[in-house]
Amino acid sequence: MIVVLKPGLTDGEIQNVIKRIEGFGLRAHVSVGKERTIIGAIGDERILVDQTLESFPGVEQVLPILKPYKLVGREFQKEDSHIHVDGHIIGGNRVHVMAGPCSVETREQVLEAAVPVKEAGATFLRGGAFKPRTSPYSFQGLGEEGLEYLAHARKVTGLPVITEVLDPRDLEAVYRYTDILQIGARNMQNFKLLTEVGKLGKPVMLKRGMSATIQEFLLSAEYIAAEGNRKIILCERGIRTYETETRNTLDLSAVPVLKRLSHLPVFVDPSHGTGKWDLVAPMALAGVAAGADGLLIEVHPHPEVALSDGPQSLKPAKFAALMRTLRAVAAAVGREL
Amino acid sequence: MIVVLKPGLTDGEIQNVIKRIEGFGLRAHVSVGKERTIIGAIGDERILVDQTLESFPGVEQVLPILKPYKLVGREFQKEDSHIHVDGHIIGGNRVHVMAGPCSVETREQVLEAAVPVKEAGATFLRGGAFKPRTSPYSFQGLGEEGLEYLAHARKVTGLPVITEVLDPRDLEAVYRYTDILQIGARNMQNFKLLTEVGKLGKPVMLKRGMSATIQEFLLSAEYIAAEGNRKIILCERGIRTYETETRNTLDLSAVPVLKRLSHLPVFVDPSHGTGKWDLVAPMALAGVAAGADGLLIEVHPHPEVALSDGPQSLKPAKFAALMRTLRAVAAAVGREL
Amino acid sequence: MIVVLKPGLTDGEIQNVIKRIEGFGLRAHVSVGKERTIIGAIGDERILVDQTLESFPGVEQVLPILKPYKLVGREFQKEDSHIHVDGHIIGGNRVHVMAGPCSVETREQVLEAAVPVKEAGATFLRGGAFKPRTSPYSFQGLGEEGLEYLAHARKVTGLPVITEVLDPRDLEAVYRYTDILQIGARNMQNFKLLTEVGKLGKPVMLKRGMSATIQEFLLSAEYIAAEGNRKIILCERGIRTYETETRNTLDLSAVPVLKRLSHLPVFVDPSHGTGKWDLVAPMALAGVAAGADGLLIEVHPHPEVALSDGPQSLKPAKFAALMRTLRAVAAAVGREL
Amino acid sequence: MIVVLKPGLTDGEIQNVIKRIEGFGLRAHVSVGKERTIIGAIGDERILVDQTLESFPGVEQVLPILKPYKLVGREFQKEDSHIHVDGHIIGGNRVHVMAGPCSVETREQVLEAAVPVKEAGATFLRGGAFKPRTSPYSFQGLGEEGLEYLAHARKVTGLPVITEVLDPRDLEAVYRYTDILQIGARNMQNFKLLTEVGKLGKPVMLKRGMSATIQEFLLSAEYIAAEGNRKIILCERGIRTYETETRNTLDLSAVPVLKRLSHLPVFVDPSHGTGKWDLVAPMALAGVAAGADGLLIEVHPHPEVALSDGPQSLKPAKFAALMRTLRAVAAAVGREL
Repeated sequence: MIVVLKPGLTDGEIQNVIKRIEGFGLRAHVSVGKERTIIGAIGDERILVDQTLESFPGVEQVLPILKPYKLVGREFQKEDSHIHVDGHIIGGNRVHVMAGPCSVETREQVLEAAVPVKEAGATFLRGGAFKPRTSPYSFQGLGEEGLEYLAHARKVTGLPVITEVLDPRDLEAVYRYTDILQIGARNMQNFKLLTEVGKLGKPVMLKRGMSATIQEFLLSAEYIAAEGNRKIILCERGIRTYETETRNTLDLSAVPVLKRLSHLPVFVDPSHGTGKWDLVAPMALAGVAAGADGLLIEVHPHPEVALSDGPQSLKPAKFAALMRTLRAVAAAVGREL
Repeated sequence: MIVVLKPGLTDGEIQNVIKRIEGFGLRAHVSVGKERTIIGAIGDERILVDQTLESFPGVEQVLPILKPYKLVGREFQKEDSHIHVDGHIIGGNRVHVMAGPCSVETREQVLEAAVPVKEAGATFLRGGAFKPRTSPYSFQGLGEEGLEYLAHARKVTGLPVITEVLDPRDLEAVYRYTDILQIGARNMQNFKLLTEVGKLGKPVMLKRGMSATIQEFLLSAEYIAAEGNRKIILCERGIRTYETETRNTLDLSAVPVLKRLSHLPVFVDPSHGTGKWDLVAPMALAGVAAGADGLLIEVHPHPEVALSDGPQSLKPAKFAALMRTLRAVAAAVGREL
Repeated sequence: MIVVLKPGLTDGEIQNVIKRIEGFGLRAHVSVGKERTIIGAIGDERILVDQTLESFPGVEQVLPILKPYKLVGREFQKEDSHIHVDGHIIGGNRVHVMAGPCSVETREQVLEAAVPVKEAGATFLRGGAFKPRTSPYSFQGLGEEGLEYLAHARKVTGLPVITEVLDPRDLEAVYRYTDILQIGARNMQNFKLLTEVGKLGKPVMLKRGMSATIQEFLLSAEYIAAEGNRKIILCERGIRTYETETRNTLDLSAVPVLKRLSHLPVFVDPSHGTGKWDLVAPMALAGVAAGADGLLIEVHPHPEVALSDGPQSLKPAKFAALMRTLRAVAAAVGREL
Repeated sequence: MIVVLKPGLTDGEIQNVIKRIEGFGLRAHVSVGKERTIIGAIGDERILVDQTLESFPGVEQVLPILKPYKLVGREFQKEDSHIHVDGHIIGGNRVHVMAGPCSVETREQVLEAAVPVKEAGATFLRGGAFKPRTSPYSFQGLGEEGLEYLAHARKVTGLPVITEVLDPRDLEAVYRYTDILQIGARNMQNFKLLTEVGKLGKPVMLKRGMSATIQEFLLSAEYIAAEGNRKIILCERGIRTYETETRNTLDLSAVPVLKRLSHLPVFVDPSHGTGKWDLVAPMALAGVAAGADGLLIEVHPHPEVALSDGPQSLKPAKFAALMRTLRAVAAAVGREL
């Protein structure tokens, strides 16, 4: 950490800053320049991440040198994490596609999505039983009944299930039914929920918050890892920008950036990322070309009457066609699917 | 709601859209233009807010006409809401200032902040016992012990207390100690938590999410109101933009926009909104000039050693000076403080 | 265009709005709803794009139905535009790669970039002689001398040249030397410059402004087209967001959106879009997978001493490796390169 | 400037970085930490602002210590700049209001705006003769004819005039007619135009670009100052964010930030900043409370038929009422108006 001092400090003022730095167990290394004096604070600066020295008298600015996360970083673990789920390996050479409806609506609807996505090559079934909805007047999900329909579809198709948990109080129920716990974008900084899923042994998919920086995203993953759960999958799902032609702006450059900074697998959700079904295929292809380890895609047997996210859901036939092209693109970049 | 049809539909396709609209209990009114045919869907369109018709065959776009919220809107209640707390009226002619430390650290620290802010004219004491922190390695708040220190400071100073609740499981404890429940920016779309505080009778301050639109902000307030709790205070606290000179970009235009759209009181938090103590005073003054009903200001007896948010905290003497100028600005715009 | 009226207007007030609409040569079609009366304004609403009715007494909001651009839109021309340059077709099945240094620095440097990019399969040479630089103290480009070096490299390699023009007063010189005129992101709304290049017969690449919506981008293209020049190539080059890990956020979803809305070819610039050389390859591959008609890539023989944009430039060997994978991805999505 | 090295470099590699730094005339000061070695580059680092060392082998990141601008910075000149125009001082204790129509439309319309704004206390007349319009089909301004109408209104009212210049080729004409040259937001990075106005002796108002950082804004001002013209007025006019309730998000915190970083006067344009006339008054008041040296306000005698920006224009009577409250707010913060 570099502490830049204001111009014109007295020796005593400089000594005070040094003492403060040393008080955190760091070593201070002073360097006097022409226009500014700076102090290098040497040691584990992570302790200071949220409690900056910037309010200390005489300090002009503080520049961190090290990343504030540790366990999820590439410096901590050089090789890619492989996450084992029901015989599948996530984060290896194979690209995984998790597909299914946004909301679980009926036992039949889940099956009508699950059977064709499995046939087309999806390896996981997605579906929401607890739904975070912008309006209190919208369908809020079937709750535990929905979890049962997902379990039924898993039994019929053999596809492991991924579903979202919204509230620490629902965690026990969701844990029982699902193979992967999903933390949605709106809960990326629900630190209590992150801590709770960190205490469990089950894989977690953590979606990037709508306006989260990549650093904040990795710090949220660190919350989970710090509790002992290292089976974390990161998912880029679009960020909020000024552009209104798409529901969000899918930040695909986050894929190679995350792969460089972290050893965790990185997925892409082109359905939420664009909000429009006709953009899902090009952005799914682009996601795999950019190096994603997997995709999360909304498929609904009848998008025109879906209780949520109809406009961004693919019909099974379109999904199957997409899977064929995805296989070719994966092969082109040295992956299989 | 206006449903714009794609060009070149057959009569049968148009009839299908009309039937779908009527299926939601709305009346359809067709208007044939030169380049497009449009259908007005007449009735309470709020039912469709999250479940748009945009995925229906033949539909090009859907344009809402009415606001998706109701109870918190000006059309539902024309006159300003007055919220009574411990003998104070929030939302009336008087501008209220809620001040105190970001985090509760010790019994003494709270008092060292509470006594001078009361003397300077603050009418509420703020302080966090449960803290949402970006890094798992940062101070996470004192929890219930912190609530006790706040209660102690209330007893000594007579100032009613506002403090944040993060988790539905802590709600009972926080409820017992606080006069106003605060929902922080990161929880603005924690819909389960909104529903829970909506079931209680205590006033709630809801802070705008970091990337929430004003419409989403009001829909989150609607979640609380829909459960029966109408004692809601809205708080603008800065939104995320590309600018890095400030921690957030304080969107003061949200104040008059919210006052026009809603009858609820609107506060401004210039401390989180800027992240730098020397910007707090100008933005606090600007907030009152823009029509805010109150301010939330971080004051710490020793910002240079604060466990959180030191850089944006005022010392008591600077706060007292600010209060004097605030009084003059409030008077200039016809308010008192 | 839909004009939504405020509630509670008198018949006379409604008649005034109707007269105003008819005054623009549009037909008014009134529809009385339960909570709002709306008026459909039928005819060519483009005349009203910047001069909205929203300030007219009694009007609550105005909702456009038609796109404000015409010549560059898909409704005006259904089939893709093919732009012929020196025997190449841009916008057809072949994906084109334009590569070369950010700034032209010396005669040798241009050649050292041009020769290997041609060998690797690039079909155009890019290079800047007039450079828009954030700081007045930075290298501002060689000007006409730089244009001569580009011409020399074209003569040696046979690659047609694309270079930027900043100022209407330089247009004549740039026109003489270049095969494609480039309008940079900072000049996307330099309407005088757009008008001038619209009067010429030479192909123009128009880059999206740093904070331009897709609609504004197409309206800027419309400026060029309206003057008679339809040989326009659109280029996505990253937009400004809050994320700081990348220089800009490359909005790849703009590619399929632009292809749907417009018949013009769409390119991607992963060098400016990311600002970091190690992100260029993944985002170039993603761009082609998303449907781009071409790429603009910065290649420098010695990025570590480049006078501009070194951090985002590829060395020739890395570029050649990228071209091999690009060919495979292009084939996977049914294109050739 | 701090150069952070990648972990694990050899001595030879470190020496190469040092030589590169010294090659720019800077002195290198090495500091070996536990996890990283860093090099302080001591001297005038501004030379490196756009040509970063980040692409040099072995370099992980580069952290600037000094501001990249000089002449417009507070370190260069501690006391506020006072700009003299026609007997007025801009940047002193008096807050100036520049008011008038968005576009000059007719000789009468300008007068109908100019006479009442003068009576209400405005000290300058604004009005656009050359208009940057998003669509080529919109009214583009009257050009030189409009400049004559402004000159006529100045003769009648005695108000000095401010008007925009878009193109270096129009500069001579605009120079002859106006008292202050305005560079609009879309031209903030039209560096050729900045250089041209920098060569003239006339005061310039530079508006912040729609997505310009404060640092970029000051660097654009530095372009003008570097040519010799120090009579620069900065103007915050709203930045682009995701919020759609307002046309732009007026970033009032930019006012105190700019006043701290620079000695130049800072104005606020609440008309463009909000895009809605009913938000102009609260944001104008807030701007003065935040410390602005002046305001730019659109006033039109008949906003409902304005050829541009009608929705954000005040009628003369509303403007006069605003001026009365503005005077009280200015007094409350120790200014006069």
